[in-house]
Amino acid sequence: MIRRLTIVGLGLLGGSLAKAARAESLAREIVAVGRRVGSLEPALADGAVDRITTDIAEGVAGADLVVLATPVATLEAQLPAVWRAAAEGALVTDVGSAKARIVRAAEALAAKRPLAFVGGHPMAGSNLAGYGVSRADLFRGALVILTPTERTSVDALKRASELWEAVGSRVMSLDPVTHDRAVAAVSHLPHLVADALVAAVARMDPQFFDVAARGFKDTTRIAASDPVMWRDIFEQNREALAEALAAFRAALGDLESLVRSGDGARIEAELERIRALRERLG
Amino acid sequence: MIRRLTIVGLGLLGGSLAKAARAESLAREIVAVGRRVGSLEPALADGAVDRITTDIAEGVAGADLVVLATPVATLEAQLPAVWRAAAEGALVTDVGSAKARIVRAAEALAAKRPLAFVGGHPMAGSNLAGYGVSRADLFRGALVILTPTERTSVDALKRASELWEAVGSRVMSLDPVTHDRAVAAVSHLPHLVADALVAAVARMDPQFFDVAARGFKDTTRIAASDPVMWRDIFEQNREALAEALAAFRAALGDLESLVRSGDGARIEAELERIRALRERLG
Repeated sequence: MIRRLTIVGLGLLGGSLAKAARAESLAREIVAVGRRVGSLEPALADGAVDRITTDIAEGVAGADLVVLATPVATLEAQLPAVWRAAAEGALVTDVGSAKARIVRAAEALAAKRPLAFVGGHPMAGSNLAGYGVSRADLFRGALVILTPTERTSVDALKRASELWEAVGSRVMSLDPVTHDRAVAAVSHLPHLVADALVAAVARMDPQFFDVAARGFKDTTRIAASDPVMWRDIFEQNREALAEALAAFRAALGDLESLVRSGDGARIEAELERIRALRERLG
Repeated sequence: MIRRLTIVGLGLLGGSLAKAARAESLAREIVAVGRRVGSLEPALADGAVDRITTDIAEGVAGADLVVLATPVATLEAQLPAVWRAAAEGALVTDVGSAKARIVRAAEALAAKRPLAFVGGHPMAGSNLAGYGVSRADLFRGALVILTPTERTSVDALKRASELWEAVGSRVMSLDPVTHDRAVAAVSHLPHLVADALVAAVARMDPQFFDVAARGFKDTTRIAASDPVMWRDIFEQNREALAEALAAFRAALGDLESLVRSGDGARIEAELERIRALRERLG
């Protein structure tokens, strides 16, 4: 059992983790760190956490597990303070959706003061944000990617895995760069593409939105997400996103040429191949 | 009340219309025309239709309302036979998802033998196809676009509207070319883009599919649709699709430049603008 679990940032992910950890009795004490007392108080009131503070050093000190759940752009800036305050033997992990940069920054700090760190990314986002929409079952059935490197100890990886498994997630490991390429492909690229679809329709004729049916709504749902969060994700994962965009442009260009060719048999074969790929995802 | 309603093609749309017309007692007799008796028999067995035939002339003769619900590529080829067989005073309409070509073809025939025709497009598709997935409530709450031209009589438009309203749809009118541009933007383009997203991930690394979460599944759901149907739709609406693709490329290019610029405030403002557009759709 965790003696003290400290969660820095109580938004959708941090708040849901606090609620899930409470529900599963994973920690004797749960501490929340945030920028404003006002945004932490609801979690104290509903019993999800035992103690709140706006002082990161105070919140992190004495914790055996620290989960950084602030927006991905803030995270990197917080690491030095976390490193200074964390107890020896503490495990630090995070929930950021881009991993290479944060893992590099953590390992640079660990080279000076050894501290266990594993990057993490629970794929349980939503187009809604904030503690108000957090819930104890958010991670149930979700995929959590951990991003150990050759410097990660077996014990650190095991402790991080146990945390996420205890709240019902499936855990897989990827190296940070592969993680970033994979989420660029299946998350950040689709998001940018959904944004472009909405922008394209507005550009052609905003009245065309009146004709949008379920397919368009499904395809563009993620375009209704938090602009600040996505601005930061695009920025954090710019390089891998550029690679994914290039692959997408090539794929779209090939499809367009095929449609323009009018070669019915080849068009059908390609659409059939894509359908088979998509159907495997359920 | 319709004396005889003939539906040519008993797939998802034609089958659902038969069931809905039966449920609402819209027609004294419902006749289904199809290529194979075997695929029509289930509708006879479950009482959705009263009579089945593989002979289009036989099925159409004597009907006061003929709904063409065969795949969009077949539809055009069937028109001359329908024109020859249809009774004077009959209204012919269709459910194809591209309209300019079919309306042009129908009006060319009407110039020789006057017959009431209105193009129609119920936006109630699915990635599933066939009579097996048809249902009486498919059109309830759906949008049906009718595409009258200056040659369409007020009476023909009224009769077509009444049919769709009677099965619970909202009806709007657009000229055929505007219809095709609008559905290219909000339906055919998103479909091609979803196809390209799936193809791009496969191209980068098929293992990345393992990381796909709800966002990717939502965005690419339409890529799991019937390849033959979509091959035909892309072909039928090639010109408008090319226009939509150009608008999409421009929008995507602008977004990519913006992300590359690193100008956080402008990125956020643009994502906020897009979110507001998308949120209006619900």
